[in-house]
Parts: sequence; structure tokens; C-alpha cells
Amino acid sequence: MTHSSLSSPSRFQTYDDPGEAAEGAARIAKLRAELVRRGLAGFIVPRADEHQSEYVPRHAERLAWLTGFTGSAGTMIVLLDKAALVVDGRYTLQAPEQVDTAVITPVPLADTTVEAWIANNLPAATSLGYDPWLHTTNAVKKLEQAAENAGGKLVPVDMNPVDVIWVDRPLPPCAPVRPHPSAYAGETSEDKLARIREKLDKDKVDALIVSDPHNLAWAFNLRGGDVAHTPLPLGYAIILREGRPTVFLAPAKVTNEAGSSLGAEADIAPPDAMPSALDALGAAGAKVRIDAATGAIALSRRIETAGGVADIGPDPISLMKAVKNGAEIAGARAAHLRDGAAVARFLAWLAREGPSGELTEIDAVEALEGFRGETGLLKDVSFPTISGAGPNGAIVHYRVTRKTNRAIHPGELFLIDSGAQYEDGTTDITRTVAIGEATAEMRDRFTRVLKGHIAIARAVFPKNTSGAQIDGFARAALWSVGLDFDHGTGHGVGSYLSVHEGPQRISKIGSTALEPGMILSNEPGYYKAGAYGIRIENLILVERREMSGAEREMMGFETLTLAPIDRSLIDSGLMTIEEIGWLDNYHARVREKLSPLVDAETKVWLDEATRPLGPRA
Amino acid sequence: MTHSSLSSPSRFQTYDDPGEAAEGAARIAKLRAELVRRGLAGFIVPRADEHQSEYVPRHAERLAWLTGFTGSAGTMIVLLDKAALVVDGRYTLQAPEQVDTAVITPVPLADTTVEAWIANNLPAATSLGYDPWLHTTNAVKKLEQAAENAGGKLVPVDMNPVDVIWVDRPLPPCAPVRPHPSAYAGETSEDKLARIREKLDKDKVDALIVSDPHNLAWAFNLRGGDVAHTPLPLGYAIILREGRPTVFLAPAKVTNEAGSSLGAEADIAPPDAMPSALDALGAAGAKVRIDAATGAIALSRRIETAGGVADIGPDPISLMKAVKNGAEIAGARAAHLRDGAAVARFLAWLAREGPSGELTEIDAVEALEGFRGETGLLKDVSFPTISGAGPNGAIVHYRVTRKTNRAIHPGELFLIDSGAQYEDGTTDITRTVAIGEATAEMRDRFTRVLKGHIAIARAVFPKNTSGAQIDGFARAALWSVGLDFDHGTGHGVGSYLSVHEGPQRISKIGSTALEPGMILSNEPGYYKAGAYGIRIENLILVERREMSGAEREMMGFETLTLAPIDRSLIDSGLMTIEEIGWLDNYHARVREKLSPLVDAETKVWLDEATRPLGPRA
Repeated sequence: MTHSSLSSPSRFQTYDDPGEAAEGAARIAKLRAELVRRGLAGFIVPRADEHQSEYVPRHAERLAWLTGFTGSAGTMIVLLDKAALVVDGRYTLQAPEQVDTAVITPVPLADTTVEAWIANNLPAATSLGYDPWLHTTNAVKKLEQAAENAGGKLVPVDMNPVDVIWVDRPLPPCAPVRPHPSAYAGETSEDKLARIREKLDKDKVDALIVSDPHNLAWAFNLRGGDVAHTPLPLGYAIILREGRPTVFLAPAKVTNEAGSSLGAEADIAPPDAMPSALDALGAAGAKVRIDAATGAIALSRRIETAGGVADIGPDPISLMKAVKNGAEIAGARAAHLRDGAAVARFLAWLAREGPSGELTEIDAVEALEGFRGETGLLKDVSFPTISGAGPNGAIVHYRVTRKTNRAIHPGELFLIDSGAQYEDGTTDITRTVAIGEATAEMRDRFTRVLKGHIAIARAVFPKNTSGAQIDGFARAALWSVGLDFDHGTGHGVGSYLSVHEGPQRISKIGSTALEPGMILSNEPGYYKAGAYGIRIENLILVERREMSGAEREMMGFETLTLAPIDRSLIDSGLMTIEEIGWLDNYHARVREKLSPLVDAETKVWLDEATRPLGPRA
Repeated sequence: MTHSSLSSPSRFQTYDDPGEAAEGAARIAKLRAELVRRGLAGFIVPRADEHQSEYVPRHAERLAWLTGFTGSAGTMIVLLDKAALVVDGRYTLQAPEQVDTAVITPVPLADTTVEAWIANNLPAATSLGYDPWLHTTNAVKKLEQAAENAGGKLVPVDMNPVDVIWVDRPLPPCAPVRPHPSAYAGETSEDKLARIREKLDKDKVDALIVSDPHNLAWAFNLRGGDVAHTPLPLGYAIILREGRPTVFLAPAKVTNEAGSSLGAEADIAPPDAMPSALDALGAAGAKVRIDAATGAIALSRRIETAGGVADIGPDPISLMKAVKNGAEIAGARAAHLRDGAAVARFLAWLAREGPSGELTEIDAVEALEGFRGETGLLKDVSFPTISGAGPNGAIVHYRVTRKTNRAIHPGELFLIDSGAQYEDGTTDITRTVAIGEATAEMRDRFTRVLKGHIAIARAVFPKNTSGAQIDGFARAALWSVGLDFDHGTGHGVGSYLSVHEGPQRISKIGSTALEPGMILSNEPGYYKAGAYGIRIENLILVERREMSGAEREMMGFETLTLAPIDRSLIDSGLMTIEEIGWLDNYHARVREKLSPLVDAETKVWLDEATRPLGPRA
């Protein structure tokens, strides 16, 4: 893509400045009037939908509509005389800029949890309302305790009071739901359902409510388009230990193909048929597994009221989905090859155009999406691109807007974290490149991050090793000089599904055992506030590792992502021979795989970018 | 100590062969008659006392009395027609040897959990009894679910039916309780109680039931002698957010000194006064914290029945106790210096006597205890010494008996894991030594274990790092050739308290952040079944680490244990320069610190044993 083509705007991303707070005071006043009408002293407004999704559809963006706050996480508690918006470290600066602070007080989570704020602020002997579709059972237990600590009580509402005052509220999304072809899925829905039923049998539960749309999509081999960047059909399913499952999806969005493929395995019903299905389960005294992470308390209440047993625990589909099968792995390799070629074209373009000092962060986002679009197979970006020049690179979840957009200056580091949705796989890659000359400190830090990245890529470990047990490998080179980074080393990644998938992860809290077939990110970083950010991210696949003399079943990682790592930022004096060997081998593989797929100009750049670092060149 | 002195037997350890199964059938028949009388279809007999202690006093050894099984963990479920003894991997071989398998079926935990066995075996529509003093609230929830899955129900009993048939049951222990001098404790009970109350206030609970005797001992600066190897007073306390605490201890064991020092801070009451104290708390509507790990469900039931709220959670004392203060740290250093000299004398003796091939495992236990005894300050061993020659070294929790005792042969590895209780500190050390010439494989494995040990000893990491995050450091050198060990890398250690202390640990499940002042073990190992075992264990102290240019609050470890590591087992070709540097520095420190404290003969050995390994000698 040439510079001139930048005039074609992104199909999947916007650079709008965050919403504005102008309406906040009036809307909160209306909400309070509604609360008074209902005899409530307050109401909890989380940034959540009925599925606890990462991307919330517009009709469920109640918090943003009420306040102007557009962060991806946050909870407001509106009392009659005050309102607190509790946000985590990512949004402590953004929240006060977006909301009307005369009406809403942003509260950093580090200072006060939602529960502590309620315990300290809810007036005694009053009722605090919540929408039982927007909170899990375990979350409500904590909120109930908090209200009790204040001498008040927590009460569910029948209809969300925000919806009553939100007159021009959008309709729920209704994107078409289509079958996910078996060439990509690699396992029939019939076989998946058999495995799920086996697990229900083992756990002695009679039914599973699938509340996580990712799990719905996986189990029934469906894909939709109800939220941004993840091809989800929003809906539910009930899978019985014995008998046909029922999938609850708005009839308008079930395409004929989906209807006929799905119909072989399941009954299809409209969402408003679900309450009576839950009642029937409860009346039969069924023990029903409800996902602890995504199942709304409305589900467990309904089951229990009808006489059933709500078994709050993990949805077994999550772990099954995390372990990719042969077709999904082949798809991931193909997707990464295609994506790597697009990223290489982008990096070559950046190397040509960057030194002018005229490119902006948005230019880079557009160019990269353009190269991916030219593959002809791009379905969406897998998340809004993080494109941070200089100090913006130090903001871990930075999203460029027209207001924050800045030119990429020579002498700066530029960090770009992006990903694509292809039908055969989901990608996620971060590269940090020097525009012009980097300082010795930047090279030292980059090299330490790279050492951490390589330590994960080269790790071998036995069966049953958790992600937490190898997380330190990614940090040791930074720790040894008193540095660190404040995010996990790796998250799970779906197969044409969410770029953030659990339960697999490499982090302090990664207690799930790593299993062959899991795909994760490997993304250590270093961030110097106000100066620059560094992150090196590849996706990695857990694979069995045969070793002579091994007494254990051993595993390691195959690196899936294919794109050069900036050699000009490496201080090879800090690297061991083994680390240099890994990098040179990786670059040789990148060159070999991508060369046939790129234009001549990119090929010249690629040859130079993947030249061996070591003396064994 | 010379060889002849071996005739003096251990003061603290026995080598009795495990009990016998002869009485099992008759006792279980009597128990069944008692169950029938009560209308019960079965009863659960855990290896547990009322405090979930590691060492169970004799009167609470119901499982051993019933079955002959003497393992430290196990649970029997006695039904009217069958009985299962569920044991973990340590006892799958021992259990069938100890019990009458005509009556009791040993079941490996790896095959079936207690809950699964109940779910699959309890007859429907029957009642399974349990003693509510021997199970925590969370454990009972799982057992209830299991009984429900079988179509039966779990019911608490008022008096343990085993106690009814156990006619010559010992009395509860009644060892004198004495104050723990403030020179060792380092903080007055008054100050500790103020900190505990502050935490109760923060957690908004009205009272804490102290059910863990370690926490009772720590909070009130008391020590007792009711169980083996840990100076515990068995008893309870209730600490109120406001008002004087009450300590429940049998009056006969409260010495005058303890009574007068304790009386300044707390009311002292006999144990049978506790139920009415719980009722009073409940009647006042109090919210009472009950330790999730050690609090019996009998406690929470009593509180709730009386109208209070049982708040099952962590006893805050556990984390406070884990972080040692200046006096405790000074005490630990003094204890390790003294203990190191005794261990050095032992190792020198072993080097002299071992090659004869005539020493046995028991001889080694006696000699080591003898050297420790000669310090004049030994209160007890901190656990029964693990003394394993050749293949016995591969049994991780081996305890030598007169039957298993074997000679230590030249050409074998000898593993000895032992510890001492001194009033100023608790020690725990493992050394593995070659008797004569070791094979290349043994040296390779030993060196890999040592590399893991050094990786932990040299680790630097920021505040909030969990033990799980560094656990992999101890294993990487083994993992790289397909090997591993099946235990945690490190456990917490108390201050003249238990050698196994939580919540701090270095292991896959070590989620507690490491904090300055915590003492842990550093004990990677390698075990070749039927051949040999290797373990290298030092105790380490978490300390703040000042580093120039550091952006984070960094920490590292001070190694407390002082004793040579067998140089003859090291293949220095596998070691990095940094690792050799660590070992040589460690040995120089061992030599410098211990030389003034040992006899001339040991001194000669010590000089040789601590000679530098590296070229920089």
C-alpha cells in the first residue's frame, strides 16, 4: 500500500474522541427520579451486558449513555445525593475527562472497591437496586454483603431503570448467524455435544446453561456479528445431559444455512422462550450448571425459584474450546502466514515512510488495516489497533483518536499492537520499532523484553505446569535491574473468536495447566511513562515435545506469528548464545515463509530485517 | 560425637514399625453396631483433630486406632457393608500394608476422591454421619453435595461414635503452657492484638475465633507442648473487635507465668466455657470470622444457630505471623548458626564414618540429633528426620523404622532432611551426600537440582510477586532435559513454631505475595524410584533489595541455612559463572561463620568442603 492509499478509511475502526459528558447531569437526574418512584436509594450500573462480554453491544452501553465514560470496564453506583464511578488503573485519567465531575465522582479501584464504596456510602435501612441480568451470582453475593455492611440491603429490579429513561435506546443487534465451516471448526457439533454431555455426566449435573456467546459459537459451530471485532452471535443454549439441546437466538438472525445445520443437533427457540425452559428444568428438580464467570444471577434465581439446583461453576466448554484441534491449528498457521506477510509489508512501508517524520499514528493504523484488507480474507480487526508513538506507546491500552493522534518522530519508538479476524484464525501481534536512532537505554530495555520473550518461546515444561509457573521467565531479565511490566505475559486466543480467551493464561493468576493445542500470546513489555513503550508479542501454540531421556511428558511452544523483530533495537552483548540462536532461527523461518508472499520492495527489506545477528551468520 | 555415643537413643524420635491391623476388623464391627444403633448408614473418619493440625494428639488419632494406618493424611468412610480408606500418593503403598484389607479397602486419591467415593457408594435415602469438630465448613459443603449426589444426606453427630467404642482412649494432652519471651517474640501480645483488631475493623467483623493453635501461640506469645515437634498449646481464643479477648485453655496446663502474662491482655477460661461464649456472640448478632482452613463447622453452626453471622475466611493472624519481625529474624540467624555448626559436625562425622559401609540410616538420625543436643539448646526436632540411603532417598516422605533401616553403602547417595526447634528459631535443612564415588548421572542430576536451588537463592523480584511466579526458576534446569520433582519448591517456616507454615510458599499454588520478613524453604529435588533421591534445602528470608536505577520496590532472599553442599557431586561444566560465584560465596560464608564454632577435626573437613569450585579460587 502506498502513502496515497491512506485516504481510504478503515472499515473496522474509528478515531472518534470519547463521548461527552454534557448529558450526564440531566440523565442522572432522570434516573434518580425513577429510583425514587421505585423506592430505591440507589442503583448499580456496571459496564456489562447479559453475557459479561468484553465488547458490549450498543443497546447495553448503559454506563456510556448515562455518563459519557467509554472505558471497557467500570461500575457506577448512583445514590440519590451522590454517584461514584469506580474504574481501574487504565481509566483513572480518562474517566475524569469524560464525565461531568460535578455530578459523578470517579474513584480509582486502587483506592476503593465497589463493595467498599457501597459499605461506606449506602445509607442504613435503604435499598440498593441492581439488574440481575448484569451481574454473576458470585458478584451479587459480594454486593449483598457490602449493602449489609452498610446496614442496607441489595434488591434486584425487574426492569432496568436506565432502560425506562433511555427513550432512543438502540435495538439489540441482529447480525446474521451462519455456520462455521467444518473445514475450520475441525469437529462436528454432534461430537462436541457428546463430549460436553460426557462431562455433565461426570460432574453429575443434569443440564448446562451456556451463557457465554463464545461457548455457544464453539459448541454449535456458529458465528455471528452482534458485537465489534469478535464474530459472536449473542444468545443462550441449554444443553441437557440427556436429550436435545435448545439454542435461544432471535429468529430474525438465524440464516437458513444456520437453521438447517443447527436443526440437526438442537431445537431453536426465540430468547423469550428461555424463562419457561428454565422453569421446566427447575420444576423437574434438575441440577443445572451455570457458568461462574458469565452466568447472570437471574438464571440461577430462576432455576432455584422453580425448584431446581443452581450449580455455579466453570462452563466445561471453556476448557474444551481452549484446546485447538488439528483443523484449528492448521487454520491458525495459515492465518499467521497470511497475516505475517501483511505485517511485513506494513513494516517495510513504515521503514520507508517513517523517517520523514510525517506519518501519524492513525496513518499507521490505516496502512496496516489496508495491507491486511488486501489479503481479501480479512473479516475484521480482532481489536482496535494500539498505535502509540513516543510517550503514547507507554499507555498500555492506548487507542488513538483524532485528538490524541500525533506524528511519529525520528528518534522515537513506535509501538503497534494489532490483530486480524480471518475465518481460519485470529491473530494478535505487537512490534516495537525504532524510527531513526534509538538511545542506549531504549536498546537495553528492548533487549531485556526480548530476552523475556525468548525465554517463554524456548521454555520446556512438563504436563500440568500452570501459566503462573513460567510467568517469571518473561520478567527475570527486567527484574534483575529493578524493572517490570504491569500486565500478564500472555492471554489465550480463540479460533476465529475472541482475541482474549480463557482459562489459559501466562500470568501471576494463571492457574490453568497448559495443554497441547492451547494458543496464547507471549507479550512481555516495558513502559516508561511519558517517554516510550516496548512490547514484543507473538502468538504461541502449546505442543508436545519429544526429548530423549525424558521422564515426563514434556511440552513447549511453537511460535505461530511470523514477522521480523527490530534488530536495530537489540544490544547483542546482553544476549546469550542460545538467545541469539533462537532469534536467528526465528528470522530465518520468517524470511523463508514470507518471502514468497511479499512484493519485491518488501522482499529487499525483509532480507535485511531477518539477517542473522550472531557470529554464525 | 563418636560412633560409640550412638548408644544414646534419640530423645525426640522413634523408629517403631507402623501399628498393626490386628484389631481393625473387631473395632470396625463395633463401630458399625454403634452406627446402626444411631440409625446411620455410615460415618466419616478423617485423620484430623479439632484444629486441623498437622500433628494430631494421641486422643484424636481415631483413624490410626481404628485401622492401624499411621500416615499423616487419609480419610476413611465406613459404611455398613464396606469401608474405604482414601489416601494420597505418599501412602498408596503403606496403607495396604498397615490395614486389614479384608475389612478396609485402601483407595488411592488419584483414582477417587472422598466425595466421589461417597457419591458412588452411599446407599440412597440413607444418612452418613460426620463429626462437626473434625471438618471445616467448606469441606462439609463438598461432603454434603457428595451425599446428595448419592441420594442420601450428610448429618452431624453429637458425640463421635468412635469415642464411644474407644474404651481406653487417652486423655487430651496437658503440657504446660509458658510465655514465649519477648526477646524472641519481638512484639508484645498487646501490640499484636491491636493490629488484629485493626484488621477486624477494616474487614467489618465483630470477632475472630482463633482455631489454629499456631495463631493462638503467636497472638498471645505462648508456647506449649501438646503435639509432637511443634510447641503448640491446643486451645482456642475469641478476639473481639472491641473488648478483651478470651483464651480457652485447660486450666491445668496454664502455668503461673503464662497465667499472669496472659491475664494482662485476655480473660482465661476453660474450654467448656466456649460454647456459651459463642452463643453470646451469636445472640448479639455478631459477624464472626472463622478461619476457612482450620475452623470446624461446629463453630460456624453454633454462631449461626445463636443468631450471628459466620464469616468464613482467612484468619488474618496467619499472614501477620508469616512476616517475621527484627527479633524473630535475629533469632532465626542465631538458630541457623548454631544448627549449621551441629550439621557441619555431623557431615564431617559422616565423611569419616560413612565409607566403612557400616553406618545405618538410624545411626545417622541419632548422630545428627546428638550433635544438635550438644548445643544445649535443642527443644525438639522440628519433624521426624528423613534419613534415606540409596533407594530410600527416593521416597520423598520416608521415615526410617527398625524394619526399613538399611546400611549406607559406598557408591550410594544419602539424603538427610532434618530440623531443630530452638527457642529462637526453627530450622529445616536437607543435604545429599555421595558416600564414595557417584555416577556421572548422579552428578548431572545433583548439579541440575543445585542450579534450581541457586536460581531461587539469587532471584530478585518486585513487590507483589507470588511464589508461583518464581517456582519455575527452581525447575528449569531439570525441565530442559525432561525431568522434574513432584513437590513444591518451598514452604513457609515458623518462628519456634511449625516447620510447615502458610500462607507463604513457592509452588504451583503459591498465590500469596512474598513479603520481606517471610521465611521459606528452598528445596528442589530429583528422585529416581528404586535408585536414589536428591534434595538440597536451605531456609531463605525474603528481604528488601536496594538496586541503583530500580523503578520498583525489589526483593531477594538471604540464605539463612549454613552448611556445605557436597562439592564432589557437582559437574561444574553445567554451571554458569554466576552460579559458581554464588556457590563459592556461600561456602566462604559458611566457612567464616562456622569455623569458630566447630572442633578442630570438623574444621579441617570444613576447610576442604568449602573450598572454591571456580577458577577464581
